[in-house]
Amino acid sequence: MTPTPTTDAASAGNGAAAAPRANASGLEGVVAAETELCYIDGIAGELSYRGYEIDDLARNSTFEEVAWLLWHGNLPTRTQLAGLNAQLATERAIHPDLLDHFRHHTPAGVAPMHAFRTAVSMLALYDPEADDMSPEANYRKSVRLTAQFPTVLAAFDRIRRGVEPVAPRGEGSTASEFLYMLNGDAPGPSAERIFDAALVLHAEHSLNASTFAARVIGSTLADIYSAVTGAMGALKGPLHGGANIEVMEMLLEIDASGETADAYVRRRLAAKERVMGLGHRVYKTLDPRAAILRDLLHGLSEEKGEMKWYDMSVAIMDAAKEQKNLSPNVDFFSASVYHLLGIRTDLYTPIFAISRITGWTAHLLELWEGNRLIRPDATYVGPPPRKVVPIGQR
Amino acid sequence: MTPTPTTDAASAGNGAAAAPRANASGLEGVVAAETELCYIDGIAGELSYRGYEIDDLARNSTFEEVAWLLWHGNLPTRTQLAGLNAQLATERAIHPDLLDHFRHHTPAGVAPMHAFRTAVSMLALYDPEADDMSPEANYRKSVRLTAQFPTVLAAFDRIRRGVEPVAPRGEGSTASEFLYMLNGDAPGPSAERIFDAALVLHAEHSLNASTFAARVIGSTLADIYSAVTGAMGALKGPLHGGANIEVMEMLLEIDASGETADAYVRRRLAAKERVMGLGHRVYKTLDPRAAILRDLLHGLSEEKGEMKWYDMSVAIMDAAKEQKNLSPNVDFFSASVYHLLGIRTDLYTPIFAISRITGWTAHLLELWEGNRLIRPDATYVGPPPRKVVPIGQR
Repeated sequence: MTPTPTTDAASAGNGAAAAPRANASGLEGVVAAETELCYIDGIAGELSYRGYEIDDLARNSTFEEVAWLLWHGNLPTRTQLAGLNAQLATERAIHPDLLDHFRHHTPAGVAPMHAFRTAVSMLALYDPEADDMSPEANYRKSVRLTAQFPTVLAAFDRIRRGVEPVAPRGEGSTASEFLYMLNGDAPGPSAERIFDAALVLHAEHSLNASTFAARVIGSTLADIYSAVTGAMGALKGPLHGGANIEVMEMLLEIDASGETADAYVRRRLAAKERVMGLGHRVYKTLDPRAAILRDLLHGLSEEKGEMKWYDMSVAIMDAAKEQKNLSPNVDFFSASVYHLLGIRTDLYTPIFAISRITGWTAHLLELWEGNRLIRPDATYVGPPPRKVVPIGQR
Repeated sequence: MTPTPTTDAASAGNGAAAAPRANASGLEGVVAAETELCYIDGIAGELSYRGYEIDDLARNSTFEEVAWLLWHGNLPTRTQLAGLNAQLATERAIHPDLLDHFRHHTPAGVAPMHAFRTAVSMLALYDPEADDMSPEANYRKSVRLTAQFPTVLAAFDRIRRGVEPVAPRGEGSTASEFLYMLNGDAPGPSAERIFDAALVLHAEHSLNASTFAARVIGSTLADIYSAVTGAMGALKGPLHGGANIEVMEMLLEIDASGETADAYVRRRLAAKERVMGLGHRVYKTLDPRAAILRDLLHGLSEEKGEMKWYDMSVAIMDAAKEQKNLSPNVDFFSASVYHLLGIRTDLYTPIFAISRITGWTAHLLELWEGNRLIRPDATYVGPPPRKVVPIGQR
């Protein structure tokens, strides 16, 4: 996800030689896969998972139902959902070595995505099925990863804060278990519902950079841990999952400066600088996830009696629309939602991973049904043929 | 790298629906980047790095000269090479936590690529420059990673064998230092020279799956550790770097069975089964690296007075050429070379990484000169629009 068209423009217009390279290297408009998982109409601003509109899913289904939908193709029956929830509950606990690793081998101040990526790679060391490439084992590992991501992240965060990690209760939704393990007490129904909706909204988005990285790695028939660890790396980038952190930093900066949101946007855009959380490679209009998150933020802000972030966000949105016809993407309102839920800013990208692990694994299961190695071509633009000259004569 | 055309054929011919998907998903023939690093003519069987033929480089330059060439664009002068060697020597030692991690948090029997990938991700935790995206810092990290890969791998291998890791001497080539840290004593000049040539041959190969994975991850402006960790994941796959292990397992299997190499190849190909190390997505004729490795293997075999693996390999090559016009790829002869150098089979893929880290980092430095987010499109082939039905009615 490109935070603003300014970013795209900056790389596309980077000198004469860069223009043709930019198009090829971005693979914009190149079809790299067929998928049954996700449909995006960037012009109309539509997104659906396996035929269900994102708005319908966010309002009428839970994250676990969506995970089942992505993995299996249809929304679960009551029995299927109970089975999945039981499996998630069984798999949530992580090996104590992971806690030890966070305590003793994770220096203070490490960026959470470095720690989280390393821990995800480490999970493979404790999974006897890590290299079992049967569809059954890969499905079990998809559920296992989805179950363990919240536990790993909450343990990392508590240990860095100097408090004891909290073991999963072994019951309740992913949203509820994560907030419980993070904060040490169970969330209220409103916080759980809003966090669950955020997980639904972030679960899947076709061939975004992290999912595509997972597919490239998976196409070598490397195991699911290798592919997902690579996806974690891509998600960390500020042009992808890292953007939600930058949105919150922008809001905090505006708040601290006393500048109005409107003046901030005008000043940044006039100087051809980025405004975070606006614009998207795929969406040329409002990202439908942003519209839903705006509603969620509005409700949460009223409930908390704190309208500041909502009002500031809407003012930024209106100014950017008027100035440059830019619209918010998924990162724009999710930042304030997480902030009002009391979550530390540098966890926003890791939280994205807690949800997107379902999309990554669904893509890998789909890929491996009829795998083909992903190996594009390159155009050589280097020096013409030449001969090695002895080092003394160079 | 696809080990045999059989593999490609198996995925391409996988039912009616799979045919169009296979082409799109493999990105075959799709230009995904311009690069100054590497030229491949798969029809003529030619490979060059920045204009220098691979044969010329393998015979007339060292791995460190090639690393400099890939990073800087030209072969180094004596002064430049001395500077690079000094920098590599300074950076070789790894943080003691890595050794601790291998001792206490790496269960016995873990596949080396899982352990190596995790350790590479961990290196970020100890690098204060990990998130510095300046070209200078990214170059320093490229040298650092190249310096530390051999140390990490040798330490992992010694600790799993129950012997103390050996610290780098802080002098000598990458080939010599690695074999010293692995075995506890310095290699002879012939072993060093041959291993060095193998490193030259594996350093770079355009948009192979691991390099492309590194580029996809790097295109989000994620850090170099995130990108390289993802590349490690891709390299692990049996359709890419994992193939050299499977070649050696095949040779050992033939040797143990008493079947002739010729009969083995005929039987496997007749049953439409794979013969490892033959065929390649890009090369339609002999992989030029295989020709060089064949010469190296011949010399090493004569020196060791052990012609068995060379003779068996040539018999397999001849039979496969006659039967299906298949030619060896880079993995085919490198397996026997490593075997004669006394290296355990499951280290062959990690050794590939010790070399390819130069190509991965050179691609990232090139990518970041004019970055554009890599975000291809997908064709949606899933269910038509539908509405969420309450769970009780499913």
